Amino acid sequence: MEFALQLATQASGQTAPNPMVGAVLVNDGEIVGFGAHLKAGEPHAEVHAISMAGEKARGATLYVTLEPCSHFGKTPPCAHAVARAGIQKVVVAILDPNPLVAGNGISILKDAGVEVETGLLKEKAAELNKFFFHFVVNKTPYVTLKAASTLDGKTATAAGESKWITGKEAREDVHRLRELHDAILVGVNTVIADDPQLTSRRSNPVKQPVRIVLDTKLKTPASAKLVTEPDSQTWIITGSGAPEEKIKLLQQNTHVSIIKLETPQFNMKTVLKLLGERNITSLFVEGGGTVHGSFVREGVFQEAVFYIAPMLIGGAAAPSSVGGEGLSLLSDAKNLLFKEPVMMGKDLKITALPGRE
Amino acid sequence: MEFALQLATQASGQTAPNPMVGAVLVNDGEIVGFGAHLKAGEPHAEVHAISMAGEKARGATLYVTLEPCSHFGKTPPCAHAVARAGIQKVVVAILDPNPLVAGNGISILKDAGVEVETGLLKEKAAELNKFFFHFVVNKTPYVTLKAASTLDGKTATAAGESKWITGKEAREDVHRLRELHDAILVGVNTVIADDPQLTSRRSNPVKQPVRIVLDTKLKTPASAKLVTEPDSQTWIITGSGAPEEKIKLLQQNTHVSIIKLETPQFNMKTVLKLLGERNITSLFVEGGGTVHGSFVREGVFQEAVFYIAPMLIGGAAAPSSVGGEGLSLLSDAKNLLFKEPVMMGKDLKITALPGRE
Repeated sequence: MEFALQLATQASGQTAPNPMVGAVLVNDGEIVGFGAHLKAGEPHAEVHAISMAGEKARGATLYVTLEPCSHFGKTPPCAHAVARAGIQKVVVAILDPNPLVAGNGISILKDAGVEVETGLLKEKAAELNKFFFHFVVNKTPYVTLKAASTLDGKTATAAGESKWITGKEAREDVHRLRELHDAILVGVNTVIADDPQLTSRRSNPVKQPVRIVLDTKLKTPASAKLVTEPDSQTWIITGSGAPEEKIKLLQQNTHVSIIKLETPQFNMKTVLKLLGERNITSLFVEGGGTVHGSFVREGVFQEAVFYIAPMLIGGAAAPSSVGGEGLSLLSDAKNLLFKEPVMMGKDLKITALPGRE
Repeated sequence: MEFALQLATQASGQTAPNPMVGAVLVNDGEIVGFGAHLKAGEPHAEVHAISMAGEKARGATLYVTLEPCSHFGKTPPCAHAVARAGIQKVVVAILDPNPLVAGNGISILKDAGVEVETGLLKEKAAELNKFFFHFVVNKTPYVTLKAASTLDGKTATAAGESKWITGKEAREDVHRLRELHDAILVGVNTVIADDPQLTSRRSNPVKQPVRIVLDTKLKTPASAKLVTEPDSQTWIITGSGAPEEKIKLLQQNTHVSIIKLETPQFNMKTVLKLLGERNITSLFVEGGGTVHGSFVREGVFQEAVFYIAPMLIGGAAAPSSVGGEGLSLLSDAKNLLFKEPVMMGKDLKITALPGRE
């Protein structure tokens, strides 16, 4: 199963809206086939493994990181294929939370006389597909809040200086995480202040995620890199008051789409619902502080990744990583749990996830 | 030498303004005596070890965590005692930076024909006496900035709620660190807002440090716990404009001293010089944000200990761990280095020290 998880991981960032899946077939102690799901619309992991094994699939044990599917999607259901191949036993890491599957895959296998065992390395398998699992259940993207600040939580000095608070290693890690998410989101103030490209600058990136700007009044400059550089799609979400002329101007760039909502203002829940409908399964929110403040206030995030630079700069007026209105009561804050912190060069990477209480 | 360092550590927080020192005498492979310096004015570690060894000190090797002293203070110089005892060899972890010693101890030993080796476990010995080393060289206390905040650097919500951001384990660690420092410092706003006791609530505390309040206009309420509860001394540092009547009122409590400066405002360098003159070798600065801001802006701190709670609360108006005016330029910030972070219950303890570049 370790090997199956490794196989699945190879396709990180390239399978959405599908999950990552790895499968290994073992017959008489020997590996006779293996596979992974590489891209939506292409064959599933089990099918690759069975076709590699050929006749040796008969009587073999299949280790698969996710419950074999039971429905006709872009490809026929795997549970049938597994049963037909004469596989004797299937070891599944975790059940598929997709309401279209949810135990049906297991039932099909059992009905066909295949022995089934579940739960092996379940937690690793859940971590692997955390985006997919969240999306399938909630129909909204898994939200990762990302910030880079000093130890005292500042993202810039009171005078506004902010470039390069964190070091090279932290920035490379950010580019890696960008590639894993389907989309990156920033507020228009960040576009105006920093004019970011919001691309992964690693060599051979898995993909360039969609770039999303929250911009109620459509203030994004037509000269912004997100508008002029077609490295990836840019979606600008704006309010009902956005002037038609500006919309036309920005949409002259074919990679730019303006999504105009029906109200002048909007909350993050509305944005996430809309992105879910557009098959964005994971969203990397890079700020600034006001945008982070909105996600925190509404409690709509699944993970926080904070890069902390070994620096204190102070300033009651200096901007913080999470700004906006903020919560009034500590009891309204989500209970998070820290994962083991990691040093990245001189910086510290702290990951926090909502706890189970 | 490991054992000598362990012995020295036992006296943590109780030797100031003297250093912690441990000594072990080994003769023919056997430990024949050991000792530690326990309190200023009492015998030094070497003297205890020699007296325990008696005749067996002759020909023995002395392991000592700090260069034996060469001057007459409250006790006679140890270097002479060591030579007189017939000790053959002395292994010293680190030289004494005290200008009254600074190599003289070693010279006396060598002149008396004693073999001397230095540098064994030097870094541990330096860490052990970081307060003393800083104080002896600079004549000002070693300053530790302590803060407790959320992951986004907030010490309270925008509405002012702040109690118990961090958990029990972090608070116990704070009490332990209080005992190790000679004094605790807070700003008057913290006294007014939180009415803290600023004592260690551990059972059998080593000592209760002096409690210091920075209060330019002498706004400390006569009903504050620091004023009414005589658990330890309270020093209130105030400006020249402080009303005499209020001074008299507060000083009715014999544990309260008002230190009135000659100017209406004052900076942290002045405060540290004044505390150094009063033999405060280490200072634990517990905030609030404005006080931390002053220390950060002037760059006068040797260590930052931040307890981070797994929580995001946001709010551009919510107070941060380091406030005040803040630095304008990132290049004015000290280059710090993080020590390996430590989990304390659900919280994270992050320690940062100025780097060497």
